[in-house]
Amino acid sequence: MANTAAYQQLTHTFARLHRFGHLGAIAGWDQAAMMPPKGNEARAAAMAELQVLMHQIITDPRIKEQLQAAEQENLSELECANLREMRREWAQANLLPANLVEAKALAGARCEHAWRQQRPANDWPGFAANLREVVRLSREEGRLLAQHTGCSVYDALMDKYEPGSSSAEVEQIFGDIKNWLPALIEQVRNKQSSEKVLQPQGPFPIPQQRALGLAVMQLLQFDFDAGRLDISSHPFCGGVPEDVRLTTRYREDDFVQSLMGIIHETGHARYEQNLPREYVSQPVGRARSMAIHESQSLSFEMQLARSSGFLQLITPLICQHLGSQPAFTADNLACLYTRVEPSCIRVDADELCYPAHVILRFEIERALMDGEIEVEDIPQLWDEKMLAYLGVDTRGNYRDGCMQDIHWTDGAFGYFPSYTLGAMYAAQYFAILRQQQPELNAQVAAGQLTPIFDYLNKSVWSQASRWTRPELIQQATGEMLNPAYFRAHLQQRYLAT
Amino acid sequence: MANTAAYQQLTHTFARLHRFGHLGAIAGWDQAAMMPPKGNEARAAAMAELQVLMHQIITDPRIKEQLQAAEQENLSELECANLREMRREWAQANLLPANLVEAKALAGARCEHAWRQQRPANDWPGFAANLREVVRLSREEGRLLAQHTGCSVYDALMDKYEPGSSSAEVEQIFGDIKNWLPALIEQVRNKQSSEKVLQPQGPFPIPQQRALGLAVMQLLQFDFDAGRLDISSHPFCGGVPEDVRLTTRYREDDFVQSLMGIIHETGHARYEQNLPREYVSQPVGRARSMAIHESQSLSFEMQLARSSGFLQLITPLICQHLGSQPAFTADNLACLYTRVEPSCIRVDADELCYPAHVILRFEIERALMDGEIEVEDIPQLWDEKMLAYLGVDTRGNYRDGCMQDIHWTDGAFGYFPSYTLGAMYAAQYFAILRQQQPELNAQVAAGQLTPIFDYLNKSVWSQASRWTRPELIQQATGEMLNPAYFRAHLQQRYLAT
Repeated sequence: MANTAAYQQLTHTFARLHRFGHLGAIAGWDQAAMMPPKGNEARAAAMAELQVLMHQIITDPRIKEQLQAAEQENLSELECANLREMRREWAQANLLPANLVEAKALAGARCEHAWRQQRPANDWPGFAANLREVVRLSREEGRLLAQHTGCSVYDALMDKYEPGSSSAEVEQIFGDIKNWLPALIEQVRNKQSSEKVLQPQGPFPIPQQRALGLAVMQLLQFDFDAGRLDISSHPFCGGVPEDVRLTTRYREDDFVQSLMGIIHETGHARYEQNLPREYVSQPVGRARSMAIHESQSLSFEMQLARSSGFLQLITPLICQHLGSQPAFTADNLACLYTRVEPSCIRVDADELCYPAHVILRFEIERALMDGEIEVEDIPQLWDEKMLAYLGVDTRGNYRDGCMQDIHWTDGAFGYFPSYTLGAMYAAQYFAILRQQQPELNAQVAAGQLTPIFDYLNKSVWSQASRWTRPELIQQATGEMLNPAYFRAHLQQRYLAT
Repeated sequence: MANTAAYQQLTHTFARLHRFGHLGAIAGWDQAAMMPPKGNEARAAAMAELQVLMHQIITDPRIKEQLQAAEQENLSELECANLREMRREWAQANLLPANLVEAKALAGARCEHAWRQQRPANDWPGFAANLREVVRLSREEGRLLAQHTGCSVYDALMDKYEPGSSSAEVEQIFGDIKNWLPALIEQVRNKQSSEKVLQPQGPFPIPQQRALGLAVMQLLQFDFDAGRLDISSHPFCGGVPEDVRLTTRYREDDFVQSLMGIIHETGHARYEQNLPREYVSQPVGRARSMAIHESQSLSFEMQLARSSGFLQLITPLICQHLGSQPAFTADNLACLYTRVEPSCIRVDADELCYPAHVILRFEIERALMDGEIEVEDIPQLWDEKMLAYLGVDTRGNYRDGCMQDIHWTDGAFGYFPSYTLGAMYAAQYFAILRQQQPELNAQVAAGQLTPIFDYLNKSVWSQASRWTRPELIQQATGEMLNPAYFRAHLQQRYLAT
């Protein structure tokens, strides 16, 4: 038997980190979905203490020696991939001092907690005061992460969520989108202006909406013995692969957004629930990246759930839980779920406007991290870009403008591009799927979802972090990221027929 | 300024332990109230890892030196009390090796998790197989804890929950109870046999029961900004002082038990919510002991909530939430809540039968820990004692017999006496309160609960672990534990009038 002693020691340490990460994930879910307000201070302190501990463990000098020794050991391909992921996590953590990790955790918790009150109160000055500290610490983090590569602060931060990505690449892709998206939105809105869409008539009591959500999650094969659905003000998918915690939010007067939100998070959840259990505690066992994660949620939400076949499939469920009404036909639901209407809120945006929301955020956060602008410049830039990209006036409306997202509150700068990259990957998977199965839409309408889940499971879920992102996409689709699929998908869905 | 460097270092370490304890408390609550079944294995591993970490921190050799150095420092009375509590925690932890801590945590989690299925299935052999390992590890724990004091294994375990207690003292108190309780039960049952009691007619939908529970918690001044009410199969009060998590369970056909369960847990909760915030992270800031904790829950449940004044006070609330019916008069509710009827289940037992349930468990667990009996002897002993003390036949009914409690599943041997000691302390507090305020019952009926809460807050909640248990009781009541108050209370409530 090969001597892999150093590698084994590393797997032991990373399994320990995984177990502490479990506690942080559950406490984080609880914080958003369960915790009463007076619990926040103690929770923030406990979470920061945990982050400092995990940072201590991964910066133990013995790990450097073990990584070096393991490179010389006779490892399998999978073990080599695990070692690559270990090294990456180790290298990032070792660039940051413990006091920065703690300070960022505490400042983020403070800013996020205050934001929950400040956002409804439209209190930009109050929010900006906290955000400045989060920005300062995030810049410092990015500067330290960038110190050996010479990349920009923003690129270093983006790399945390999307290993191997660069803002130049993203800028090129987003620049291309900016060239054709406004015209496409215009064209589609003209086409849709003569469409008759019936608005569903509420109220839709929350228990019924929840029951509908659960039924759709069941249809999407969410494993309820290994996860839950709850409520939080900012929907997310948290928890751990063995116990995935989804959240949504409900409005009594509208079920459309909440239902699609549940489907989106179920996409994330199925990725987590189907990560291979044999190495769930190891870095190679984690989801590949945030863009790949979003590619799963958006495969569910955009590619699958807004298709006419899927809407046919769930129309009876909607009627069963919310009662029949004229708006609840598959055709009308398809109109509702493909309706293009620029508005303020990203998470409520339609498929066509969504990229504009992301591009705007990308441009602002990049400038902010790279020191080209300061916190006080955000509102004006926001207003200008909303007007330019979507024709929406957000002046003075911080609540539904630059204060709407949770991401910046705890310093997750560099995350936003993942959404649109994910949408592009999802379009690319489904282009392949539709090539392979020309009758896909009819199959979906008949409830045959297994071919889709099988493909995603084989190509993405079961692969975890075994391959780099380019390798994963190459194997899943036969080529690298090709934004043409995304554009073709939008044109097909919104202009054809 | 006095040099208290060593003491300060200790407070830093104990605050760190407190923050990790926070994560364990929330994860523990989640495990019982939220977690889906497939989450258990990963959760158990994470919780065990946390226990090992906390054990590592408290067994760091520097703490021994710091404790010695701090003894020489010029500390305030409160700091001295904190140092005493630190030393106690340190001494207990240092008697146990890390692998025992981990093995006990894992065996307990395994046994408890399997018990959730085994109990409804009445599967004693399956349960016994897991319990044997928990017993083996608990005996080992007790043996190590007892090694310097020469006390018995059981006494060493009991000391974890009730510092300074001894089984000889408990045995004397319980022996006395055994002398008079069976005759008292008999006498009361004869008296009650001619009483007419109307049974409430259900069903009582769970949302209404929950709303009633929340209303009563409000009346009892539970702070909902610093805690929650949820559901678990074994009701408990968990979480952290800043964020207290209560649970109950509901039956559609009966609200009586669940409501009283909520009141019981609210007593625990108010103790936690009112622990002094200035030293919440320190050992001296914790609740004094488990018997004192139960003295609060039983002050609420037995002394306050089963009094005729309180039942008068909440009758309108019951009618408001569950609808009016002939059974919902204050007099009839008082009959229901003081009805004496021996039955299998401890948590559903009336005030008079409850001590018999505790004495039975105390006798069995003591013999089990001290090696006088083995796991396979439990059912027969259980049946014999249930018959002897309460006249109840439990043969073959493991589910409602020796498998009914959660305590033994994760090795909490030595906890049970706390319940009846708590009931005695509660009777002693209320004897004082009634002496001081002869019109207490009428005040309660009029909704004036503040004198009671003020007394408990001043005497117990705000004192945390500043005093030893005997000191605390002496200051609260002017004398040491005096079981005569408990007997007098029972005679007064159940035989007078």
